[in-house]
Amino acid sequence: MADFETVAKQFVEFYYKTFDENRANLAALYRDNSMLTFEAQPTLGTAAIVEKLQNLPFQQVQHRADTVDSQPSADDGIMVMVTGALMVDGQDRPMSYTQTFQLKRDGGSWYVFNDLFRLVYPAA
Amino acid sequence: MADFETVAKQFVEFYYKTFDENRANLAALYRDNSMLTFEAQPTLGTAAIVEKLQNLPFQQVQHRADTVDSQPSADDGIMVMVTGALMVDGQDRPMSYTQTFQLKRDGGSWYVFNDLFRLVYPAA
Repeated sequence: MADFETVAKQFVEFYYKTFDENRANLAALYRDNSMLTFEAQPTLGTAAIVEKLQNLPFQQVQHRADTVDSQPSADDGIMVMVTGALMVDGQDRPMSYTQTFQLKRDGGSWYVFNDLFRLVYPAA
Repeated sequence: MADFETVAKQFVEFYYKTFDENRANLAALYRDNSMLTFEAQPTLGTAAIVEKLQNLPFQQVQHRADTVDSQPSADDGIMVMVTGALMVDGQDRPMSYTQTFQLKRDGGSWYVFNDLFRLVYPAA
């Protein structure tokens, strides 16, 4: 069985690849008890989460995960904290972001139980 | 009983106040199963965590939490994701950071089970 760091890294790679290629396919990674807090807006369940992600005000996006930290968590889960940069719709200025996932088991696979996302602006 | 958002906000306020006033007192917020991953370096348990925090290479620090997002999590816990800025030893340039906590219950109070910290550099 893969250790938590390997699961975390593989998950992050797959998540952003899917996000950047076809957001609708992220549905497979959420469940009806999944929570997303995106820029302070809370959403519950696969359908609402995928609708939220699909309705973000850009067509094209590219994520680049710069750091991926993980820890085992309660209830046999995995905490994953990402910092990185993203670029939308061909703009030439990337934006920093941070995203934390808590992954939970669902049989032989993993799904996103907690998901919190924030853009990070330069400190001033 | 306070809702999770109130607990999260009160925790964050208390955590950084304690950090900035006297890091040694953070011991009360960790337990022997607590995990800290600070700039990719993993530490386990109250004693090692507090030693790590006390040995950070600065004397004075001021944290400013700009955003605090929270969700209920597995096992009756609370996920808390912070973005903010910190300033060390009177430097005039604040640095952006992100920190995620998973809080767990210990009788009538809460402790930090998961703790992940990263400085966030401007995207380039």
